Amino acid sequence: MLNIKNILFQIKVPCFIKQQNSQKSWFHLNSVLRVLNVSLQNRCVVVNESSSDKQLHFMKFPTVWLRDNCQCNECFHQSSKSRQIDWVKFDTKVNITNITASDNSISIDWSDKHSSTYSLDWLRERDFHTDKREKYLNEFYRPKTKHWSKNDFKKILSTFEYKNVMEKNNDLKLWLQQLAIYGVAIIKNAGTDKTAVRKLADRVGFIRKTTYGEEFIVEAKPGAKNYAYLSTPLPLHTDLPYYEYKPSVNLLHCVVQSNSKGGENLLADGFHVVDILKKNYPHFFETLTKTVIDWNDIGEDGGLPFHNIWRSPVICLDGDGFYTRINHSIPQRDSHFNVTIEEVELWYEAYSKFVKLLQQESVSFKLSPGDILTFNNIRLVHGRTGYDDNENNVRCIVGAYLDWDIIYSKLRVLMKNYNKNEK
Amino acid sequence: MLNIKNILFQIKVPCFIKQQNSQKSWFHLNSVLRVLNVSLQNRCVVVNESSSDKQLHFMKFPTVWLRDNCQCNECFHQSSKSRQIDWVKFDTKVNITNITASDNSISIDWSDKHSSTYSLDWLRERDFHTDKREKYLNEFYRPKTKHWSKNDFKKILSTFEYKNVMEKNNDLKLWLQQLAIYGVAIIKNAGTDKTAVRKLADRVGFIRKTTYGEEFIVEAKPGAKNYAYLSTPLPLHTDLPYYEYKPSVNLLHCVVQSNSKGGENLLADGFHVVDILKKNYPHFFETLTKTVIDWNDIGEDGGLPFHNIWRSPVICLDGDGFYTRINHSIPQRDSHFNVTIEEVELWYEAYSKFVKLLQQESVSFKLSPGDILTFNNIRLVHGRTGYDDNENNVRCIVGAYLDWDIIYSKLRVLMKNYNKNEK
Repeated sequence: MLNIKNILFQIKVPCFIKQQNSQKSWFHLNSVLRVLNVSLQNRCVVVNESSSDKQLHFMKFPTVWLRDNCQCNECFHQSSKSRQIDWVKFDTKVNITNITASDNSISIDWSDKHSSTYSLDWLRERDFHTDKREKYLNEFYRPKTKHWSKNDFKKILSTFEYKNVMEKNNDLKLWLQQLAIYGVAIIKNAGTDKTAVRKLADRVGFIRKTTYGEEFIVEAKPGAKNYAYLSTPLPLHTDLPYYEYKPSVNLLHCVVQSNSKGGENLLADGFHVVDILKKNYPHFFETLTKTVIDWNDIGEDGGLPFHNIWRSPVICLDGDGFYTRINHSIPQRDSHFNVTIEEVELWYEAYSKFVKLLQQESVSFKLSPGDILTFNNIRLVHGRTGYDDNENNVRCIVGAYLDWDIIYSKLRVLMKNYNKNEK
Repeated sequence: MLNIKNILFQIKVPCFIKQQNSQKSWFHLNSVLRVLNVSLQNRCVVVNESSSDKQLHFMKFPTVWLRDNCQCNECFHQSSKSRQIDWVKFDTKVNITNITASDNSISIDWSDKHSSTYSLDWLRERDFHTDKREKYLNEFYRPKTKHWSKNDFKKILSTFEYKNVMEKNNDLKLWLQQLAIYGVAIIKNAGTDKTAVRKLADRVGFIRKTTYGEEFIVEAKPGAKNYAYLSTPLPLHTDLPYYEYKPSVNLLHCVVQSNSKGGENLLADGFHVVDILKKNYPHFFETLTKTVIDWNDIGEDGGLPFHNIWRSPVICLDGDGFYTRINHSIPQRDSHFNVTIEEVELWYEAYSKFVKLLQQESVSFKLSPGDILTFNNIRLVHGRTGYDDNENNVRCIVGAYLDWDIIYSKLRVLMKNYNKNEK
């Protein structure tokens, strides 16, 4: 079997380069000589594009990755956009027996007798270069978050018009981006119809159902079975820490606001407070990331009894140390504490500091009827000051959740359409 | 402020001990002398219960934990079963000024002028002893999983009657326990009404909705936008690896089975295969736990376009190294591979080995109309052999998902009721 190594394929093709910096269309203006080199190096294909005076693109692609991602109809199912190559027989040691380049694609013959063609556009979008990968992750996969302090809040808070979000894709996109980056935004003038939240959720995708149903009404109820359904102050917390699959984003629609002094919303950026903790109290940070807490909720809703428990630290990190989730709720922390006795005191010290910092970094504001407060329940903590209802004024919030899976999916669809429309 | 240390409170009360080993009722038979010692030691309360001839219980509880978990009406909201102590003012250095014991409870006066009483039953259920905590976690929180090989399958597979699961709590409990421990069970004689899956899900809690709706129909469709909706072989995979919040358990109701040779279900225990990989190919195991893969799904369903992406390794571990999730799908692995070029080859070698081991350890069987195959989508991989529809025989599976949050909640409620009924 022929294995071609370090053999240079060079073609010289007349092509067109656009003056503006728009990658996608640089074949179409001003004739210059473009040179495309394709070579093999250490089981990688090296693609080197240059114009007469400068390098345009230098890309490397692993041989095995190219074979795995052949885009022909036999290897890739077009309508479902799915790889259908038979992986039980897949040969990770597959070799290239021939490689050729045209101006817009490269073609490969493989040692398993298959042939593949890859367009340069397709390859450029999958460039393994660090900068390209980071751009893809931070712009397309999930926008990079920016943490905010109490003092930043006024600067970072964006408001959107309900009508615009419902009707204009660009407003919808900007709202979701704001939510992704800062974790909070307010939608104004949604009216006081109790279906506004459902309509908003349907505009993005669909409501995330929980033990408490799809929409939930937050009103003071005597003998409430959920601590939020009281008019007493509701301390800062995240919702449903007792779910492994915690709902991602809260939509809280103010239908009736309290005329009494209270009923203000409280918010703090949990990730910002973790930044402070990590910097100033590293041993507390470590304790809160390592000690596994039992979060629980026991009760019933709509005739369905439940006993929810999820065990997870207050601060959750991924393998790279990035913050992935904050769990915090005084009412919903179980009295079962499944740690060794030796771990207890330090954890309480750390948690106490965390709670005080959250309090210090929290902002408060009072929603008006027609406002929908939207925020990231994985990252922010929220609360409410106490209030007094009377016969003619019963505070009423209609809430619902959206999941990040669904939001980011919508955001990607909007970004792709936006890019298409721009062209 | 008085801090009592190592002061022994001893009471001698006549009480009753049952001969059998039933903790809950040991006050009720055979009069003997029970001795209850309560003392303070290193900011812990030590509770020592003994009968005339042996130690019955030795428990230690941290002072700060006791104060945090005071069960009085001021500190604990009874109807919502929620802690309502004000944590912004909570003093982690709180001291005990007095402690007294009766035969069934201990009472504490605190340096913050508060008083608390804890029943011995309540304390016993929250014992910090390792054995007690492990029992709670493995029996009540989430039953301990048992991994199975291809050869074990016949032994571990349980079947349940649909009617019994729908009507008898004990059958429902046994089915959910089987799912939790082995990740698979078959429900028989559910009929061929397409609502059977919804009824089953409602019996547990509620269906988990995804991009593909609540129930989904798996039938061969020309030009399918989902790879599962073809009659070609469907290789082993997990569903929706491209969701951060991946649906937990599949319910696949066979409404019409294919008369052709194929249409068999394939299943393998991903956790068992990870055991093999970890033991025999530790470098492959490490690669598959560390390399973050882009899982994706692009398309539309019910008029809703989506572009789902979730980045996660094939084998996910928690902080203690326990397996938490398997991601595997040849069709739904993105051609965007966001790693350095140097990581690519080893990952492909490792994944290829994993895929071959899954194949080796997979079982196959053909469902009959009326069967509902239920399995853990976080842990097992499933697939299907190809089949041929004809005009009078169109294979039809109605599917839906349930989430573990909801299943475990139901299981805990059933276990509590079961224990109550036993008494």
